[in-house]
Amino acid sequence: MTTLTTPACLLAPRSVAVIGASDDPGRIGGRPIASMRKQGFTGRILPVNPNRVEVQGLPAYASIADLPEVPDVAIVAVPASQVQGVVEALAARGVPAAILFSAGFAEVGGEGTAMQAGIVATARRAGMRLLGPNSLGLANLHTGFIGTFSTFAGATDVHPGRVGIVSQSGAYGSHLVLSAMEAGVYPSSIVMTGNEADLTVGDIVRLLVDDPNTDVIALYSEGINDGDGLVEALQAARAARKPVVMMKVGRSELGGAAAQSHTASIAGDDAVFSAVLDELGVVRVRDTEEMLDILRLAMRGIFPVDNTLGVITVSGGAGVIISDVAEELGLPMPQMPAAAQARMLEMLPICSPRNPVDTTAQFINDPSLITPFTEAIVNEGNYRSVLGFFSYAAASPVVTETLLGQLGRVRDRYPDRLYVVVARGPAEIMARYEAAGFTVFGDPTRATTAIAAMGRFGRAFAAHARLPAPRLAPVTLPAETPTEAQAKALLADAGIPSAPERACQDVDAALTAAREIGFPVVMKILSPDILHKSEIGGVLLDVRDEATVRSGFGTLMQRARAAAPDARIEGVLVARQLSGGVECIMGINRDPVFGPIAMFGLGGVFVEVLRDVVFHRCPFGEDVAESMIRSIRGAPLLLGARGRPVADIAALARTLSRLSAFAAAAGPRLQSVDLNPVFAMPQGEGAYAADAVIEIRSGGE
Amino acid sequence: MTTLTTPACLLAPRSVAVIGASDDPGRIGGRPIASMRKQGFTGRILPVNPNRVEVQGLPAYASIADLPEVPDVAIVAVPASQVQGVVEALAARGVPAAILFSAGFAEVGGEGTAMQAGIVATARRAGMRLLGPNSLGLANLHTGFIGTFSTFAGATDVHPGRVGIVSQSGAYGSHLVLSAMEAGVYPSSIVMTGNEADLTVGDIVRLLVDDPNTDVIALYSEGINDGDGLVEALQAARAARKPVVMMKVGRSELGGAAAQSHTASIAGDDAVFSAVLDELGVVRVRDTEEMLDILRLAMRGIFPVDNTLGVITVSGGAGVIISDVAEELGLPMPQMPAAAQARMLEMLPICSPRNPVDTTAQFINDPSLITPFTEAIVNEGNYRSVLGFFSYAAASPVVTETLLGQLGRVRDRYPDRLYVVVARGPAEIMARYEAAGFTVFGDPTRATTAIAAMGRFGRAFAAHARLPAPRLAPVTLPAETPTEAQAKALLADAGIPSAPERACQDVDAALTAAREIGFPVVMKILSPDILHKSEIGGVLLDVRDEATVRSGFGTLMQRARAAAPDARIEGVLVARQLSGGVECIMGINRDPVFGPIAMFGLGGVFVEVLRDVVFHRCPFGEDVAESMIRSIRGAPLLLGARGRPVADIAALARTLSRLSAFAAAAGPRLQSVDLNPVFAMPQGEGAYAADAVIEIRSGGE
Repeated sequence: MTTLTTPACLLAPRSVAVIGASDDPGRIGGRPIASMRKQGFTGRILPVNPNRVEVQGLPAYASIADLPEVPDVAIVAVPASQVQGVVEALAARGVPAAILFSAGFAEVGGEGTAMQAGIVATARRAGMRLLGPNSLGLANLHTGFIGTFSTFAGATDVHPGRVGIVSQSGAYGSHLVLSAMEAGVYPSSIVMTGNEADLTVGDIVRLLVDDPNTDVIALYSEGINDGDGLVEALQAARAARKPVVMMKVGRSELGGAAAQSHTASIAGDDAVFSAVLDELGVVRVRDTEEMLDILRLAMRGIFPVDNTLGVITVSGGAGVIISDVAEELGLPMPQMPAAAQARMLEMLPICSPRNPVDTTAQFINDPSLITPFTEAIVNEGNYRSVLGFFSYAAASPVVTETLLGQLGRVRDRYPDRLYVVVARGPAEIMARYEAAGFTVFGDPTRATTAIAAMGRFGRAFAAHARLPAPRLAPVTLPAETPTEAQAKALLADAGIPSAPERACQDVDAALTAAREIGFPVVMKILSPDILHKSEIGGVLLDVRDEATVRSGFGTLMQRARAAAPDARIEGVLVARQLSGGVECIMGINRDPVFGPIAMFGLGGVFVEVLRDVVFHRCPFGEDVAESMIRSIRGAPLLLGARGRPVADIAALARTLSRLSAFAAAAGPRLQSVDLNPVFAMPQGEGAYAADAVIEIRSGGE
Repeated sequence: MTTLTTPACLLAPRSVAVIGASDDPGRIGGRPIASMRKQGFTGRILPVNPNRVEVQGLPAYASIADLPEVPDVAIVAVPASQVQGVVEALAARGVPAAILFSAGFAEVGGEGTAMQAGIVATARRAGMRLLGPNSLGLANLHTGFIGTFSTFAGATDVHPGRVGIVSQSGAYGSHLVLSAMEAGVYPSSIVMTGNEADLTVGDIVRLLVDDPNTDVIALYSEGINDGDGLVEALQAARAARKPVVMMKVGRSELGGAAAQSHTASIAGDDAVFSAVLDELGVVRVRDTEEMLDILRLAMRGIFPVDNTLGVITVSGGAGVIISDVAEELGLPMPQMPAAAQARMLEMLPICSPRNPVDTTAQFINDPSLITPFTEAIVNEGNYRSVLGFFSYAAASPVVTETLLGQLGRVRDRYPDRLYVVVARGPAEIMARYEAAGFTVFGDPTRATTAIAAMGRFGRAFAAHARLPAPRLAPVTLPAETPTEAQAKALLADAGIPSAPERACQDVDAALTAAREIGFPVVMKILSPDILHKSEIGGVLLDVRDEATVRSGFGTLMQRARAAAPDARIEGVLVARQLSGGVECIMGINRDPVFGPIAMFGLGGVFVEVLRDVVFHRCPFGEDVAESMIRSIRGAPLLLGARGRPVADIAALARTLSRLSAFAAAAGPRLQSVDLNPVFAMPQGEGAYAADAVIEIRSGGE
């Protein structure tokens, strides 16, 4: 789908046909016409209704064929059974895009799914793009194009803003839009994608990135149908410095079909989803309020690259609350410089001048302090974000004018900072703070959370000179699942080292290999049909002498034949037994949405029980790999915690980055790679995979 | 402090003297008088001012000695330097309680701290209780007693409610009270405790538990000065079925002095604080909004013991959001019974009838469905809590009447359930839902969080027949830090088993011990001066023969003398080496606020790196111990995860419970106990401490 373009006219049509147009402004075929006229749509509205010559006072046309011009967009509001015919007629006229309100398709299953497929096929042949079916439609509040029957279109104070809103759900999308307008977050355009038979949320985000009236994008989704398209759109948004705030629900469900490999079963798709959003600089929110808070602050357009927070407060308690939240969100609150602290104490001996700067209520009693204190915070403290906690005092008649004047003076001198106040009181007074450039929150936790999000956007927008991912020639995967030795050979070509080892077809070869590799060795059964060797007793550890090699060879053969009588047995793998390293696990799994995803964690219980793992889309460079490794909870075990040796992080990062490049080069036939364990040896001694399983997707999948 | 009682007249005085009374209603000595008269205080107000015969139209008295009666409460609004004299005069008159507005005491340190101590000593001698100093005071909105100069007293629509609010911080307390009233949460009484030189938040909670006008208690604190008092007050609140919601800030600081033992350093006080609140059924909130949400719903007085959530929604997306949050908070959402699902599908084929029951917008179009659907959820689904998501549709003119009527019918039939709706629209319409018994939230996440909190109260209020803690005779601790062998003997008397072991003064004794215990053994240096033996190489594991016992004895002696030349060496401990068990850690640490706290975790990296530990106040029974053990993230390792043997949880719980009883019986001289490791053997084989360190508090502490 991502190779097709989305016609920009979908968002800004000059002419709109309404198929199934109704004279009744309450019906879904009537509501868009009424709304467009109310909102002053300047384009042409072309109602189609075989039974009427006029609809809501506009001339109506009996059929699509009768339309006097080819509309930029067609709104389709007819029963499901008629949609195929309508789409064919629209296709015949060369209409570039249609919005399908009609329901009764894939969302009801069975025949509906088949009907939907037919419609998409028809549209594809004609190069026509479809929004829906089962979509509440879209609205562009800047042009008055209201191609939706959602209730928000009928709300009284709809006026155009700068936030593009995209929602899969019509009902929740309407809730979100109405809540947003109530919170003062006005939309530029609103799009409900419905069944996404053709256009997906990713396509719509891409449209909004190019929309000159949209500065900030809000995205609500229940499941992604086109991962590549979404990733491209989010990359474009980042490049255009348009922040994206996303609410992705369904966190609690382990989505997608259960994948077969061990690695794949470790975590649900949701952790992968969060990792991808993180990578792309999207801020994921838990609820609607957090979304609106962040959108509202993002509308200021200030995204500090290295965000720091300076706080001025009339309440020590509020200062503590803010510090707690900032620490949890990783938003630094460095101390004020000593000289500035001394000067503040001279001006106001009872103040606490570190940061939060607590002036107590004295601040309100002596307004002449406001400018010097705030300016010290902004200038000498040099914080990128400044948060003032004034609570209800901000709205007291004596205080409002002074506070606005004195704070405003500082803001005028340092307009590049992010200014937020926690204030409560009558809406008209709060609006004055907003108008003066101070975004108002009623609660310090919410204010701090929104400020932290601005820093996350800032970091994402900064042109990080990321290291390139390793470049590999395309990898040719074998026709079927490779043996461990073949897997390791494939990986070795990609620069991923394993412990020295030898495939041995008989006992003599095994003895020679063990002698040359050096005792102790590990012996493992070698068969393309036995993936999880330790489960059948197919791994012998700590083999210390030739006698044990001899008896071990026989034992492995016996166990393999007993457990898998039909398996092809190719011999035994003799490998150096690594010791002194930290057991890690690395893997690749093909995510149904985002393609190959690399995973890293510590071995054993860390992965199995604690799910202490990190994910990233493939491929990526060594810097990304290293920050992944350092991000897990158990990372101190690799970094010398409690007297342990420091592990070779560089080698581990190199291996992880190369594994990601391997996955990218291997293409869609690669189902999974499981390196378990990878031994991270002490610094300077490398990292080695001790086992490797590669799974190939079978043809049909 | 907890042995003193708090006079109930503090909250409901019949007469109030104001020392430092001012004629100016804007000054702190004038504001309470003006506010009390405005709020219709029916008691007597007795202004004291040496310079006036009248204050705000009331007769004034020149001195405390001149007062015509002994007031129930004195409000003290004079400069810090005069407070000592005032308190002496009040004490002389036998005034039972005083509220000290005056600042400049312990909060400024130095001389202020000394002045504060003097005031407390004076009051104690006279049996007078003090609120403050540096307190904004208290207000009882039911009697009109406004003993505060906080701004909220001047707000326009102050009317009495059922929520008692206690805050240490005056400024944040005022913010909280004003935010609460804005959210429709009206206070019964409001108390700001300030410096807590005498009365603490615990004392005030205790007063509110006995206050007939208070049903729900909100508590804001920055640090607890009287842990026992708070615990007793919270236990009383639980017994009285008065839910307590607490915001305790300063999460990010690791408070208190660093304790010496290994166990103590594992986690900060904040985790202990959360554990204690959890135990006492207090719901701890992160921010003011969450507090107000929970208070508002708690005002319904419905606290389900086994809470379950049934959801009816017009938006599938909202249903997913609610399910996500419910799962995260452990609020069960069982499916609707199959028969009810079938009937719902018959009534409305496009509905999704499992739970959430998604009716789509059809619900709004066909209002006759509302009663049967909701009744099916309440009656057949038998959920204790019912959440309806209607968003803005709830306020649409056509819908409001019908929805209220049809929902109301169900509520009348089943009044014992908790009913919540997510609805948005004009305040007057929302008020109608509230009046009809449906608590309204604007956001599904917030609604679900509040519902989950009601279940937590319900569980806490249910008379859980907890197992009793083991009863032990008082433990006599030795004069100084015991050796490992002494420690284990003390613990053995309390029923806490260690691995079989022998203290051996020479090599021959060690050889005999090893033979009798059976190889392999562990050998450890035995000295009261060497607590952390492994750090000096004082532990030899896996000693497999007599020759190694012989050489090991010498090695341990050498290492001990080299590392600690002055240490008293008492020999070597020879113990059975346990194998096949899971390494756990148990400990006791004396928390500065809550006394002895038991800790449990898995050994090694789980405690050291992942801080996967659980805490509980001592003592407790085996049922509590078992639920602690099962609550850690790594619990699957004890419960047979991935083919491991199941550990002897019962023995582990018995040991943990006995350890808690030992800590309680040992009294305040016990600083810490560290059992690391404790081996949890396979089921039926017991649990054994392999090392034990007991630390005694030195005299001065």
